[in-house]
Amino acid sequence: GEGPVLLAKLVAMVEDLGERNDVEFEAVGLGVAGLAHRSGVIHYSPNLPDLVEYPLGTELAAALGAPVSVINDATAGAWAEATFGAGRGSDNFAFVALGTGIGTGFVVDGRLILGANGFAGESGHMQVRADGPPHHTGQRGPWEYYASGTALGRMGREAAAEGRFAAGLERAGSVEAIVGFTVADAVAAGDTDALAVLDAFSREVALGVASLVMIFDPERIVVGGGLTDIGEPLRAGIDRWLRELTLGADHRPAVEVVMAELGDHAGALGAGLLALEGRD
Amino acid sequence: GEGPVLLAKLVAMVEDLGERNDVEFEAVGLGVAGLAHRSGVIHYSPNLPDLVEYPLGTELAAALGAPVSVINDATAGAWAEATFGAGRGSDNFAFVALGTGIGTGFVVDGRLILGANGFAGESGHMQVRADGPPHHTGQRGPWEYYASGTALGRMGREAAAEGRFAAGLERAGSVEAIVGFTVADAVAAGDTDALAVLDAFSREVALGVASLVMIFDPERIVVGGGLTDIGEPLRAGIDRWLRELTLGADHRPAVEVVMAELGDHAGALGAGLLALEGRD
Repeated sequence: GEGPVLLAKLVAMVEDLGERNDVEFEAVGLGVAGLAHRSGVIHYSPNLPDLVEYPLGTELAAALGAPVSVINDATAGAWAEATFGAGRGSDNFAFVALGTGIGTGFVVDGRLILGANGFAGESGHMQVRADGPPHHTGQRGPWEYYASGTALGRMGREAAAEGRFAAGLERAGSVEAIVGFTVADAVAAGDTDALAVLDAFSREVALGVASLVMIFDPERIVVGGGLTDIGEPLRAGIDRWLRELTLGADHRPAVEVVMAELGDHAGALGAGLLALEGRD
Repeated sequence: GEGPVLLAKLVAMVEDLGERNDVEFEAVGLGVAGLAHRSGVIHYSPNLPDLVEYPLGTELAAALGAPVSVINDATAGAWAEATFGAGRGSDNFAFVALGTGIGTGFVVDGRLILGANGFAGESGHMQVRADGPPHHTGQRGPWEYYASGTALGRMGREAAAEGRFAAGLERAGSVEAIVGFTVADAVAAGDTDALAVLDAFSREVALGVASLVMIFDPERIVVGGGLTDIGEPLRAGIDRWLRELTLGADHRPAVEVVMAELGDHAGALGAGLLALEGRD
């Protein structure tokens, strides 16, 4: 099966990291997409379909002779941002990672929310248009259908097909070749069509964030994931739409929207931290 | 203003309760609908529109010479159910109160979620159909539009108007007179039309609960509020639809759906408990 193959690779990787950096390791943390159980069993991962129910944590711990934590990557990313990044100074914030899908992690009263099984933070699957189009997950209209990096690419293609994104068409060569990064690059170049696409996208991000504000009452939103490179235009767009879409905004202190600081390594850093802290 | 009038009534009520029961009080807890700040200031309450920004907690504490906690009623209800009711034995559960609107409260790792300001748990305002009809809050398609007691009444009226709820029409006398309790009473009498309305309603409740399961990963849902009297038909309907609507249900332990045990007093009990515990 795939489990033992991945296990052998991970053992080799950990040993190689130790040798190359000439350090001993105390604990190992794995950040994975999907449902990582507190026990170290991967219940489901979109990237590791053959590892359903595989006890990766305990197998790796046995092979390495060290404690291993297996944590959802966005949950781990939230903890890394809390400790080293854009969550510092806040005891109540939401980490929202915009990538292929949407991953989220929550810090409440200074503590990381794991959930009964370790599956908390799958907010990308909350349905924001319950009668909306079917998503590859089988749900209709989940938040990540409208507000992930994948969605930004689709919105760019739709704009180009309707003659509202000439710069994107030129950059990518065809409507079909436009992806999220095409929009991001055109935004960076100051293209007004791309800014209009980004504004509509930012509204979709803020729509889901507004629900998270209702549920958690955070004081800060930390926006991470692959789209972080867009920077201020994305941050400002989410910030503006969030004020518009938050119910009772006049009666609440404003929720601060900031960009994440740890980039692609947030999940790995957080998983390592949680392993050192003995959390699972 | 309304503040001092309410204050005088509350002081008289507390003193009367103490005299009638021949006990001294140590602390006072108020459970209120809406945005009750941790500081004791009511930022907004639908039932107390003239009390916006009124520092009810500190004023009442000064008048009584005792500590006062002001807490959102559903948040307080969750804590009461955790301590005395249907949340006992679970460190991770969601309390969902179905009444005029929807109020929710969350217990995570045995702790009550208050949020940065004390405003957590306003899940009834998460948008489940973002292009849906306008709600009295100004939002489009929030969860409580579809799944509150108010919504059950509307679904009953719609069914009656379309000839699908003759028993309701007979009970209420007219389509307009049908409310949530009309449906509840007809369900209790075993009317199959009412059971069909309740089934559609249960699906709307489960739709929002499924999002909360994605976000919090609770092991249990405690259903409370004014509709609790419907009992098993409502519990079973939510339970069945939740399995259907929870993404990855095959890879997750089933979430237990139970009815609340403390009835209408959950909010008051929880507010008193939190006051005794010195929480605000």
